[in-house]
Amino acid sequence: MPDRPSRRGEFELIARYFAPLAAAAPGALGLTDDAAWIRPAPGEELVVTTDALVEGVHFLGTDPPAQIARKALRVNLSDLAAKGAQPLAYLLDTVFSRGVSEEWIAAFAEGLAADQAEYGVALIGGDTTATPGPTMLAITALGTVPAGRMIRRSTAKPGDDVYVSGSIGDAALGLEVLRGGLADLPEAARAHLIGRYRLPQPRLGLGPRLWGLAHAAIDVSDGLVADLGHICETSGLGATVEAGLVPLSAAAQAALVRQPSLLAQILGGGDDYEILFAAPPEAAAALADLAGAEKLALTRIGRVTAGSGVTVLAADGQPMALANAGWRHF
Amino acid sequence: MPDRPSRRGEFELIARYFAPLAAAAPGALGLTDDAAWIRPAPGEELVVTTDALVEGVHFLGTDPPAQIARKALRVNLSDLAAKGAQPLAYLLDTVFSRGVSEEWIAAFAEGLAADQAEYGVALIGGDTTATPGPTMLAITALGTVPAGRMIRRSTAKPGDDVYVSGSIGDAALGLEVLRGGLADLPEAARAHLIGRYRLPQPRLGLGPRLWGLAHAAIDVSDGLVADLGHICETSGLGATVEAGLVPLSAAAQAALVRQPSLLAQILGGGDDYEILFAAPPEAAAALADLAGAEKLALTRIGRVTAGSGVTVLAADGQPMALANAGWRHF
Repeated sequence: MPDRPSRRGEFELIARYFAPLAAAAPGALGLTDDAAWIRPAPGEELVVTTDALVEGVHFLGTDPPAQIARKALRVNLSDLAAKGAQPLAYLLDTVFSRGVSEEWIAAFAEGLAADQAEYGVALIGGDTTATPGPTMLAITALGTVPAGRMIRRSTAKPGDDVYVSGSIGDAALGLEVLRGGLADLPEAARAHLIGRYRLPQPRLGLGPRLWGLAHAAIDVSDGLVADLGHICETSGLGATVEAGLVPLSAAAQAALVRQPSLLAQILGGGDDYEILFAAPPEAAAALADLAGAEKLALTRIGRVTAGSGVTVLAADGQPMALANAGWRHF
Repeated sequence: MPDRPSRRGEFELIARYFAPLAAAAPGALGLTDDAAWIRPAPGEELVVTTDALVEGVHFLGTDPPAQIARKALRVNLSDLAAKGAQPLAYLLDTVFSRGVSEEWIAAFAEGLAADQAEYGVALIGGDTTATPGPTMLAITALGTVPAGRMIRRSTAKPGDDVYVSGSIGDAALGLEVLRGGLADLPEAARAHLIGRYRLPQPRLGLGPRLWGLAHAAIDVSDGLVADLGHICETSGLGATVEAGLVPLSAAAQAALVRQPSLLAQILGGGDDYEILFAAPPEAAAALADLAGAEKLALTRIGRVTAGSGVTVLAADGQPMALANAGWRHF
């Protein structure tokens, strides 16, 4: 039968590295209880989301631990942002590989502390244990919205414009750089792309301001085309995207000029953590104002239609073939 | 760089096995969105807890999958029970070892469905991915209490009586049986002990009725002495326990008669998932009524004192030496 890791070691790790991350949340009780309490303000409801990340699957054991921590937290905060929620708190299960050092854990906790300060969230619970296998992290993030205001995937309307925040494809190209590709790009462009892969920017300023403007929203994690496909499928509709309208960073543009075949990776690669949303044409002026206020591009890239599936149109207006866009098989 | 598992395979698994578990919760949106919403009733607050379980550490890959699922859910529900909370919903991250078959996942989901029906909870979110390492499960459970009524560990008072529900030690002895020990016990007793190890009974009927009676509470997972130590440490107090008062099942009594040295495992072994609580002497009559109403033994086993640490007294009134009670090192 299985043996358990040392509980005393677990308590010491929690007290030293994780309890300080819970200091700002009264309901966390310093991580010294079995559970935490959390009280939404009257008229608010909670939005909850969870993601698990596995070493060797979602990150590498050689990645800097602070960056692993921040990415793990940010992908969850990005889900909250896309739902229009203000982040409030999170729970963290850490299952550390036996080889993980205390220095690694200290740096990991420092990464969390940095992002907690940046995004105004606190740790309110968790579990820490050891595994003979790869390190695994599970985060459950909690946010709040005024009751009934969570922005869903399934509520797009025919005729809606499709918008996306920021720029698309940087993370997929950053992964390509880390794999040894795009060697002819300028160093600054390569660094920009890697940074976008390593450290997503959850659009928490934007998300809560989309309520009343966007009919449906999702964050781009699987890939632009796949995630728009999720909106279409749950809404029972289709969509067209004009490839030429998809917003690209200067670095991504430079890469695409050199290698036009990268378009499939840009549209399908994922990990952008931008907000993709459907909004009626009459929201255009308000969205332009919002983009200005947030200093964040909001670009119209297509339209929601009757039918089903996502059609990507090339510059000549013809549908492009993007096999398995957004799926990475292995 | 890491590759991701097939997302299409993930979606199919979710739709086939996990979405049906979310059907009763409107906020779960059929597990087709990035997040779920949850709305506590006015005047209620949420209680949240999370636990991660790793194959080879907390369960064996050869254990029946339905039982693994139910134990994973129940250890979280037990935390809610000890805090006086009514369970509401849970999120589940499954990180399946590459060798896990679809039949395994189907049986795992059936176990969850059985316990959802038994305890009135629904799945409202999760994440499913694959790992080259052992299977890992992370559950975050959400319950509700009237605002301010979560029963804490840290609020025991000197002079409180220490009570425990049900019986103690069965799970530790069940593990001993599974390891090949206690071969001379009658078959029925061995089966009882194994059952208590494999399938905890979260005391959800009891927990919410302890508010106003118990000053502090915890569920017994690390072991009776260790968990009472958690109450003492967070309350800044000590406690004495009379070993002879600790409630034992008939099977545990039979084992102890044969092998008196098992007392250390009974008091320290853990996995009981009973509720251990501190209550003032004037609550005794109400607790007796509650025990009758719940058809669940509530046994006074000791007292909260000034000072620190847990002292276990033998039948002769002398302190017993229980080194590292509740800790399992490896």
